Amino acid sequence: MDGEKFSVEAGKPILCKAAVARKPGEPLVIEEIIVAPPSHHEVRVRIICTTLCHSDVTFWKMKVYIFSLSISESLSACITASTLTVRFFLSVIACNSLKDYPAVFPRILGHEAIGVVESVGEDVDEVVEGDVVIPVFLPDCGDCADCKSKKSNLCSKFPFKPSPWITGDKTSRFTDVKGEVLYHFLNVSSFTEYTVLNTANIVKIDPSIPPSKACLLSCGVSTGVGAAWKTANVEAGSTVAIFGLGSIGLAVAEGARICGATKIIGVDVNQEKYELGGVYCNDLCLMLYFHFQTGKNFGITDFVNVGECGDKPVSQVINEMTGDGADFCFECVGLASLMEQAYACCRKGWGKTIILGVEKPGSQVTFPCSDVLVGGKTLIGALFGGLKAKSDIPILLKRYMDKELELDKFVTHEVSFEDINKAFDLLLEGKSIRCVIWMDK
Amino acid sequence: MDGEKFSVEAGKPILCKAAVARKPGEPLVIEEIIVAPPSHHEVRVRIICTTLCHSDVTFWKMKVYIFSLSISESLSACITASTLTVRFFLSVIACNSLKDYPAVFPRILGHEAIGVVESVGEDVDEVVEGDVVIPVFLPDCGDCADCKSKKSNLCSKFPFKPSPWITGDKTSRFTDVKGEVLYHFLNVSSFTEYTVLNTANIVKIDPSIPPSKACLLSCGVSTGVGAAWKTANVEAGSTVAIFGLGSIGLAVAEGARICGATKIIGVDVNQEKYELGGVYCNDLCLMLYFHFQTGKNFGITDFVNVGECGDKPVSQVINEMTGDGADFCFECVGLASLMEQAYACCRKGWGKTIILGVEKPGSQVTFPCSDVLVGGKTLIGALFGGLKAKSDIPILLKRYMDKELELDKFVTHEVSFEDINKAFDLLLEGKSIRCVIWMDK
Repeated sequence: MDGEKFSVEAGKPILCKAAVARKPGEPLVIEEIIVAPPSHHEVRVRIICTTLCHSDVTFWKMKVYIFSLSISESLSACITASTLTVRFFLSVIACNSLKDYPAVFPRILGHEAIGVVESVGEDVDEVVEGDVVIPVFLPDCGDCADCKSKKSNLCSKFPFKPSPWITGDKTSRFTDVKGEVLYHFLNVSSFTEYTVLNTANIVKIDPSIPPSKACLLSCGVSTGVGAAWKTANVEAGSTVAIFGLGSIGLAVAEGARICGATKIIGVDVNQEKYELGGVYCNDLCLMLYFHFQTGKNFGITDFVNVGECGDKPVSQVINEMTGDGADFCFECVGLASLMEQAYACCRKGWGKTIILGVEKPGSQVTFPCSDVLVGGKTLIGALFGGLKAKSDIPILLKRYMDKELELDKFVTHEVSFEDINKAFDLLLEGKSIRCVIWMDK
Repeated sequence: MDGEKFSVEAGKPILCKAAVARKPGEPLVIEEIIVAPPSHHEVRVRIICTTLCHSDVTFWKMKVYIFSLSISESLSACITASTLTVRFFLSVIACNSLKDYPAVFPRILGHEAIGVVESVGEDVDEVVEGDVVIPVFLPDCGDCADCKSKKSNLCSKFPFKPSPWITGDKTSRFTDVKGEVLYHFLNVSSFTEYTVLNTANIVKIDPSIPPSKACLLSCGVSTGVGAAWKTANVEAGSTVAIFGLGSIGLAVAEGARICGATKIIGVDVNQEKYELGGVYCNDLCLMLYFHFQTGKNFGITDFVNVGECGDKPVSQVINEMTGDGADFCFECVGLASLMEQAYACCRKGWGKTIILGVEKPGSQVTFPCSDVLVGGKTLIGALFGGLKAKSDIPILLKRYMDKELELDKFVTHEVSFEDINKAFDLLLEGKSIRCVIWMDK
């Protein structure tokens, strides 16, 4: 690589390649950038491979925040972005200051990855050079009341927000060769050969784990599996309903499967997401590896096509299918109306409804008071599936190595770094679940 | 008593005294009634003492259901009853058939009590003659999926509804001396010297426990204590906010106290409910015993007067008091707006909001989607505080005998059966928490 003409040396800037998002919706540009050395409580990491998540696409497509617009106007403009994930980040930033604007360019996207610690800043004792780490967007400082508690995964020291800066600071570690600042993304920025992360955003892992599988646990797959395993604590023999069979929904199915659920009902508007697992491939796919997956491969035993429910609400269909309702309902789309349907077909007495989907800012979800009290149901919201990154990801990886948790089936495509824009195409066309992007292949 | 001219003999009707509600809002009439022998799975019980709960008053005041009205019209009429508790029962019956009308007369009210088994029907092996039992309005059949599960207290065999009949049947065990049917109330009907109950509605208890304390666990006190202890599982050192300092709210405070909560915030519109514990007494009180209670006696450490919050929502006041919000919020009033406030000041990450209050039928509660997902909060509805009558009430009684659970302070008044209407006056005037009505004093 061109960067090799510079030595990679601790304490000095690194020149390396990155895929820079320069304008909304335009192909990423592979170019040389300069990555600063890590500061206090930071590490610089050489990325081995990264994957593409819907949130990357959402922010890539998002229009640049224009200061002369009012917040509401700019948010309305942003919402035109087609993916639902954007709503979450907008809903977070809606409460923050103008400086925490969501769409900034040029930016280094990417937040699902695995890498090797190249160097560490001051006051870092968690890892040393050469350690293998997974970055995680949700901070886990280890010191605050939330991080010390087993009950919360919402760090108080670094409350999560879609900042354009590195965690805990208002500066960037990236510049282009002309000296222009390149913004961070979701505390990670993994579409670069080297990145800098706060130690609150890394998890040290066993280096023997295949990187293309370990990197899946950075975000989406962990969210779904974690929601089933940790937040819901799905019980053996139980009935699960999953609203939305995107990657998070499929990960919920995988989590429910390993927890021993016997009936896993997938709910979607698209029958193919059951029959074909949400992945449709044709000859145009450019990939190094290819696995054809179906929803059934993810343990989904039954399918409800919302478009074929006729006059019946989908909750009624599921209540009729199950007799009493599902023991666990997961909303993975981000529609208030679907959250309400999930709650309505959650079994009385012990049913749990877990909200993973992201509605647009200002949206509200409404439940009948009588159903809340007399139903004896539980409603839980879970960011990152309720997982505590540093303690829970190693557990999930062990379950993968023990052949309990199946990660392989989530990897539908693999491309080289120079083909990163193909990964975008695949996701935009609904053809991939996860496409692994190798930095050195 | 006049009934003594009849022998009390198993398998034969008993003539005894009862306080019959003959017309809405008019004083109960102490008269002789005939109590049939118990049928299959039923027991006939001699009441030792009973207490008065708001639900009794609600149904006593409720207008008679008139069949020529539409359901919505009649419900609207019923809602004019002043207590909030009625809303719950109406919300339950709103989904049931016309036959499940809520207001019927003549009726034998009362559902908090303690008694001795006089005789048992066929197929009863749970108790024998002479056993001391507490009746409970919420059935616990012991056989259905819910009753067998540790997770649910909502019996599937006998789904709770405010039926005018005995549990599991569409008939009454009561007639007056002219042969007119007297209706049951909440599966119990305890304002009578003898009543008949399905075994699903009784809990056998240790006969050495003082009856005037044991009877408190039939409904209201159990609901509040159970919600804190079992549903919320309040932790030592935690912060609790209680919205509404009626008898259930005070019972939540007692439950939170024994669980070791260090900060218990009472929220009400009436400062006296903190200073005076919701009980205001004057010389007109007619009672055998008298205990002056204050909210502080129930472990409440802080008070928020909703009327003095100014422009601030009460949730903001509590967030400011606690820094991060309360670990546990209990809504004990039955107002959707207050449920929303409780949720809004429930701590992110691990906070639980427990809904105990009863809103009017058709009401809805609304939450911001972003608060649900990013807040990581839990919302739980709990009927009867989530308690399973047969297994949990004996535990609470043991904790009373072990001097952990304080029940004495809930008994503010005691009257003889012939003075039962004074118990109504005391409750209507906001002077009593619980008034024990002794059948033979």
